[in-house]
Amino acid sequence: MIYFQSDYLEGADPSIIECLARTNLEQSVGYGLDEHSKRAKELIKEYLKNRCVDVHLLVGGTETNRIAISSALRPHQGVLAAETGHIAGHETGAIESTGHKVLTLKGDDGKISAEEVRGYVEAHYKNESFEHTVQPKMVYISYPSESGTIYSRKELEDLRRVTNDLGLYLYIDGARLGYALASPLCDISFEDLPELCDMFYIGGTKCGALFGEALVIVNDSLKPDFRYMIKQNGALLAKGRMLGIQFECLFKDGRYFEITKEAVRKALRIRKAFEEKGIRMFGSSMTNQQFAMLSDSQASELRKDFMFEHWGKEDGLNIERFCTSWATTEENLEKLLDAINMLK
Amino acid sequence: MIYFQSDYLEGADPSIIECLARTNLEQSVGYGLDEHSKRAKELIKEYLKNRCVDVHLLVGGTETNRIAISSALRPHQGVLAAETGHIAGHETGAIESTGHKVLTLKGDDGKISAEEVRGYVEAHYKNESFEHTVQPKMVYISYPSESGTIYSRKELEDLRRVTNDLGLYLYIDGARLGYALASPLCDISFEDLPELCDMFYIGGTKCGALFGEALVIVNDSLKPDFRYMIKQNGALLAKGRMLGIQFECLFKDGRYFEITKEAVRKALRIRKAFEEKGIRMFGSSMTNQQFAMLSDSQASELRKDFMFEHWGKEDGLNIERFCTSWATTEENLEKLLDAINMLK
Amino acid sequence: MIYFQSDYLEGADPSIIECLARTNLEQSVGYGLDEHSKRAKELIKEYLKNRCVDVHLLVGGTETNRIAISSALRPHQGVLAAETGHIAGHETGAIESTGHKVLTLKGDDGKISAEEVRGYVEAHYKNESFEHTVQPKMVYISYPSESGTIYSRKELEDLRRVTNDLGLYLYIDGARLGYALASPLCDISFEDLPELCDMFYIGGTKCGALFGEALVIVNDSLKPDFRYMIKQNGALLAKGRMLGIQFECLFKDGRYFEITKEAVRKALRIRKAFEEKGIRMFGSSMTNQQFAMLSDSQASELRKDFMFEHWGKEDGLNIERFCTSWATTEENLEKLLDAINMLK
Amino acid sequence: MIYFQSDYLEGADPSIIECLARTNLEQSVGYGLDEHSKRAKELIKEYLKNRCVDVHLLVGGTETNRIAISSALRPHQGVLAAETGHIAGHETGAIESTGHKVLTLKGDDGKISAEEVRGYVEAHYKNESFEHTVQPKMVYISYPSESGTIYSRKELEDLRRVTNDLGLYLYIDGARLGYALASPLCDISFEDLPELCDMFYIGGTKCGALFGEALVIVNDSLKPDFRYMIKQNGALLAKGRMLGIQFECLFKDGRYFEITKEAVRKALRIRKAFEEKGIRMFGSSMTNQQFAMLSDSQASELRKDFMFEHWGKEDGLNIERFCTSWATTEENLEKLLDAINMLK
Repeated sequence: MIYFQSDYLEGADPSIIECLARTNLEQSVGYGLDEHSKRAKELIKEYLKNRCVDVHLLVGGTETNRIAISSALRPHQGVLAAETGHIAGHETGAIESTGHKVLTLKGDDGKISAEEVRGYVEAHYKNESFEHTVQPKMVYISYPSESGTIYSRKELEDLRRVTNDLGLYLYIDGARLGYALASPLCDISFEDLPELCDMFYIGGTKCGALFGEALVIVNDSLKPDFRYMIKQNGALLAKGRMLGIQFECLFKDGRYFEITKEAVRKALRIRKAFEEKGIRMFGSSMTNQQFAMLSDSQASELRKDFMFEHWGKEDGLNIERFCTSWATTEENLEKLLDAINMLK
Repeated sequence: MIYFQSDYLEGADPSIIECLARTNLEQSVGYGLDEHSKRAKELIKEYLKNRCVDVHLLVGGTETNRIAISSALRPHQGVLAAETGHIAGHETGAIESTGHKVLTLKGDDGKISAEEVRGYVEAHYKNESFEHTVQPKMVYISYPSESGTIYSRKELEDLRRVTNDLGLYLYIDGARLGYALASPLCDISFEDLPELCDMFYIGGTKCGALFGEALVIVNDSLKPDFRYMIKQNGALLAKGRMLGIQFECLFKDGRYFEITKEAVRKALRIRKAFEEKGIRMFGSSMTNQQFAMLSDSQASELRKDFMFEHWGKEDGLNIERFCTSWATTEENLEKLLDAINMLK
Repeated sequence: MIYFQSDYLEGADPSIIECLARTNLEQSVGYGLDEHSKRAKELIKEYLKNRCVDVHLLVGGTETNRIAISSALRPHQGVLAAETGHIAGHETGAIESTGHKVLTLKGDDGKISAEEVRGYVEAHYKNESFEHTVQPKMVYISYPSESGTIYSRKELEDLRRVTNDLGLYLYIDGARLGYALASPLCDISFEDLPELCDMFYIGGTKCGALFGEALVIVNDSLKPDFRYMIKQNGALLAKGRMLGIQFECLFKDGRYFEITKEAVRKALRIRKAFEEKGIRMFGSSMTNQQFAMLSDSQASELRKDFMFEHWGKEDGLNIERFCTSWATTEENLEKLLDAINMLK
Repeated sequence: MIYFQSDYLEGADPSIIECLARTNLEQSVGYGLDEHSKRAKELIKEYLKNRCVDVHLLVGGTETNRIAISSALRPHQGVLAAETGHIAGHETGAIESTGHKVLTLKGDDGKISAEEVRGYVEAHYKNESFEHTVQPKMVYISYPSESGTIYSRKELEDLRRVTNDLGLYLYIDGARLGYALASPLCDISFEDLPELCDMFYIGGTKCGALFGEALVIVNDSLKPDFRYMIKQNGALLAKGRMLGIQFECLFKDGRYFEITKEAVRKALRIRKAFEEKGIRMFGSSMTNQQFAMLSDSQASELRKDFMFEHWGKEDGLNIERFCTSWATTEENLEKLLDAINMLK
């Protein structure tokens, strides 16, 4: 059985394992104040060409979202997200558990627009009883979205403008950031991100690390006391260097960008194989997640040798997700492409 | 410079690093449902000689405490702890951030007694306005305590009896559990723990793992839906097998007990060296943490070559903490013993 | 200017004011343990023909909802409500501020059905990753709904059955309960309520009191320690007798039922006047709230002498709410009916 | 039986009852936007000789504390209070339920000092692991304290200076504010309060109202969006004019100051009676609460005709609280004085 159901099936990029082994007996101070963590943060700032941001290394995505969002909002404030946004439906109410409502927008193809945001916020303040409803104060987007789609530079700039106009924070969940930047549709670069938002995180778990997400805080007003927030949420690793080592490896010689690029290349070959077979794709993802719309017989044919994730149903067809990652081998890829090619 | 300031200075027991490397390319399902996690839980149950407990693998201690405690309590309920308890003063109000007050008892040598608990609870209900104060519903103890001391079997049984009588949960923070069980003063065994409390956790981070704590839930009423709680708190690792692998290694052939025993043996040699020098020890720890009361000149003499943690002041002397762990080498230990021996 | 915009425009039923004045110098114990509060609770139990329920007197509706709901749920659990439900959109995220997500169902005419509830809950558990989403544990309905509509006995019994089957609590927000019971469409009686749900509240504020809501807890498992919850939420009035006196007056000789009946009679005359004029009504309310669909010119004609609440737009028409209450005078009613009659 | 056990035994100053009756049929908008509420706020500002403060009318003291404190703090921040402070021990963990720890100082005679505050905060930041503990960000004092004692102008100015220096908010709980201002020991005036703190509240419930507290926000940074916070906490009264009317009556012609002055005068006569009898007083209260230290036989002798509150024990004597209020009659006072006089 060959697995394509997610991008967190294997361990980590081998350079990470090698480094963990090599540094195992080093003695270092705890709680992220060690040299590896410092160097990792420096490397990230170098790649961002920005010395002014704060970088914090955290363990997981839900954890990062809940800490970042609850640190920024006052109790009566909520965060706007697409109905399909990860915080809206896949984090067991983590944001609500910190007291904040996730306010949802319909969105399209996994993305929300500046117009939707403006419409929501203006309607809020036009309402005479606006204080009887949650105040929208932050916009959350995923880049790439949960559907693998990405915002264009223009869409991001529009969101930045409207959130600035309306006094909202803009926060980008980059659980799969590397795959967005590696997409042929991407028209921004890594170093543009600080200009486009107030906070974002660079996903490690799904992009080659054992675990780990690097939160980058751009807006000065969101920086103070962030380590208290990490500790309070139980997210300050005693052996913080585990995170430092991983991001050090990922950002050494741009490995993060290299491995995600390779994964996207493989994903697009899967997309092409389905399309050549006349199989419709769900959504317009050009990143490492591909959603094929398969008949029941097609799906069960493929399930003989491959695992992939059932995403839902539409028009009587099964939406099935296929993911690639740093660990997808050429060999397994070829087997999948052959199998697709053989489908009726 | 040789570090003795904590037990989380190095990486992990080499068997863990080796296993991480060896299994790196295995494909496995996420979120702790993988085979390594299953085996780790089975191993723990075997060593506990108890099939009925639930085991959950979590990342860190503060995280484990906040999830375990907030899962068990209703909003108006609080948890009793020693003033020196980790949840009372070293977790940035993590318990309060979930809505629950930590109610403190004075304790002695890091420990609280059944009598103190009974006194507090009876005073609560004797008060006419008891509903104007937080209801005590859980007792939290650390085993070993933050001062390295351990409860005797009799003390634990008394606590168990009084909490049962009064309808309170008893929860044991075992961040350094291995060191307690390895202490010459310890008169219980690992498999006794489920009888003695409602929940406890087996510390990994400070006992040989890169990170990881295994929460054991004994009381049936605390078991339901615990995985929701883990996810909501951002503590459900996508690559959950990282935790599985580590506890699998630690509990294979009793390695957990072996490495902590060796660390305690070394710590007691440090204690002995101080005592032979006529230096007073703070508290009666017979586990891997030793607190020496040093004059300013003694402390600065030792600081030339060694790092250790300043714990406080008493009687004009400095309380300094020295920790051993799985990673403490004979060589470094000998150097420290020599240096102690040379003190004036 | 004559106001019809809400049912909380005036003070209180004169019997309440009279009683407040008469008892002003009585000395009584605080925090709801006084004789007035006891008698009020007894009276409510008598009218319910049920000695087993617990009754708590609280100040306001949002307060009652947040305390009742957060007292019942564990942290990972959420409450199902109609999109139009008061807790979903008009309480500034009060439920979320206690950590719980409001899960919304589309509903129809302000009401949700047993089928919708079953569908949602079954889909939740069918999902492989169900622990990544909030667990539905309570159903919240308003009776009458925010649109003035009421559930039939059959609909309530179906909801009761499905929530029992699925292990969910059923909670009824009765902010305007009196008006539901007085509706010609109502086919249940006051004393049926305990059989139909786990908790409900009898609205005072909108039904003749200065303020005050009486929460009735039917399910034994929801009863323990409720007064702690009230105090913690800052809702335990020092001079609790203010609430006792009001419910004592409202339930003396069935005054609560009498004044709400009279208000509904008046509201239905408004409805009839609009309908006779060929003006379409929004929704099927037969309670004290009537929603007329007015053209811009009709609305501005009426606004010359009357205040009413703009509720929204549909089909190019304005949905305008007209409310009656215990305080609506015949004289003001006649003036409104005349004005409606004169509309073009 | 004559009650002296608290200052919330009776209804309200008769002018309030009269006004409630007189205005009962007025129609007004809801949620505190009515004319009575506006006038009440204006009156308070006039008496404060300060147009820049924000005033909010709330229902109760615990409610006011929890909203004011949780509105001001970020999640990792806590509030310093005396161990005897109301928020520390008499509000069922209301502050903790909003996520914030109450950090306690020993205090003396119910009061804390600027030195204690400075000591605590400096120790916090001197600690290397300061981010592992809750950040002190606000100081809470009660004026008068729970023991009836009051801070001198110098003590208040010192607290103001130290909190300004250290970047802390200073918040004054004025549940019994009127009685402090009426004390012969008081050396500040009402209009000095805005200079002395960032927020304070003017207690109504214990000073002549049926219920109600007026929160005054001085610090501009604490003003935004406060009404959202009120609504979210379920504290926005639909018939908000109930609060407006009460504070309008209390501040009309300085009635608030007059009735509290009279109550203090009566309390001091009780103190004098005890002292003349050679009975020791607990604490140095010169406000409306008096704490007499009675032998068992003295206490039971008085209990034949009077109710008062048992506060605790010291030196084998019973500390018993006697309170006066606007409603204490000369007749009842004389009876108590006679009874004290007759004690053996």
